[in-house]
Amino acid sequence: MSKQVAIVLAGCGVQDGSEIYETTLTLLRLDQLGVAYRCFAPDIGHHEVIDHRRGEAVEESRNVLVESARLARGEISPLDELSASDFDAVILPGGFGVAKNLSNFAEAGSDMVIHDVLREVLIEFHDARKPIGLMCIAPVLVPGVFGHGIAVTIGNDPGVAGAISAMGGLHRTCAVDDIVVDFEHRVVTTPAYMLATGVAEAASGIFKLVERINEMIDIKP
Amino acid sequence: MSKQVAIVLAGCGVQDGSEIYETTLTLLRLDQLGVAYRCFAPDIGHHEVIDHRRGEAVEESRNVLVESARLARGEISPLDELSASDFDAVILPGGFGVAKNLSNFAEAGSDMVIHDVLREVLIEFHDARKPIGLMCIAPVLVPGVFGHGIAVTIGNDPGVAGAISAMGGLHRTCAVDDIVVDFEHRVVTTPAYMLATGVAEAASGIFKLVERINEMIDIKP
Repeated sequence: MSKQVAIVLAGCGVQDGSEIYETTLTLLRLDQLGVAYRCFAPDIGHHEVIDHRRGEAVEESRNVLVESARLARGEISPLDELSASDFDAVILPGGFGVAKNLSNFAEAGSDMVIHDVLREVLIEFHDARKPIGLMCIAPVLVPGVFGHGIAVTIGNDPGVAGAISAMGGLHRTCAVDDIVVDFEHRVVTTPAYMLATGVAEAASGIFKLVERINEMIDIKP
Repeated sequence: MSKQVAIVLAGCGVQDGSEIYETTLTLLRLDQLGVAYRCFAPDIGHHEVIDHRRGEAVEESRNVLVESARLARGEISPLDELSASDFDAVILPGGFGVAKNLSNFAEAGSDMVIHDVLREVLIEFHDARKPIGLMCIAPVLVPGVFGHGIAVTIGNDPGVAGAISAMGGLHRTCAVDDIVVDFEHRVVTTPAYMLATGVAEAASGIFKLVERINEMIDIKP
């Protein structure tokens, strides 16, 4: 029986959903390591739909689960079917969807509200001492859910790092090709497209994150 | 000055646009090799929009250029701005968008009509002896544009291989981790998700295709 990792998506596209390259690179490295995965997304409306060519919001409504299905080649389940007992770890790619659909961090900053089911899911994985991986903007969820005491990185953006501190979190500056590991809480983060200037750069940190999550699964706490 | 490769997209999602993983893996390998790229897509309506969760067409209209911009993180130009003189090679990822938006192969098979500008672009690259890479279903465009005499692969699907033959093309059976190279015409093809059962399998053939295209650019005809 291979290891099983849950992936939580937030739409399909950097500006209003999950970052496409970050998600694909995560799935690629998992598959190369022989780790099975299943994608999940909440069955809710998009906070907004962005025309990615012009970078402007448009008058359209889309569903986060349905759009995330594009990124999962149709192989996806509603987030409320995700149980930590079925998986060895959970990974959240980044993209503005994390800050717009899975939470309202984009608008509310350190006062954000996190999607209820996602909050429960992350607590469930944490309580079971199962590794949690987050990249790009997604690490802001960690202090949002757990409060103080867990080290994460979003690269070196002072505004976002400040919001993490304001929520009681510990921010660590990190290069694009590196990861921050909180061994005690089994949380692994990497800046990805918070810093990456190209796909290969993003891959360097994301591959490290996936490899570390894979190793942590083997080390039973 | 680094090499420059044009990527032609057809939307964002396997069922009605460009295959997301194939596109990302192509861009990853190009970037790892230090090859620059630019994405292009036609500014036309989608043939149809598919709910990728249910696999069913929905009453919605989307624009191929705007949706492709998701896959290009906004860095994209209209296809009619693509000139072979600005690039060293062109690559087309697969996905049903190639057979629905860039052509009507999905409906018309060997009687298909190919988007006019795309046809001109492919002829321009071919006439300039610049390498052309195509993956998944996209190789059906080769006999559609050039008629007989160019060897391509779509894996081993008898229906699609038969349509290639009916258009006067030469189909070669090929494994998912391999490529078919027509050295005379400088066309490289790989089955990708016509055969792949996972991202790592798709990557194996796609990486070979990109590496071969990169080598061919160095070998001036």
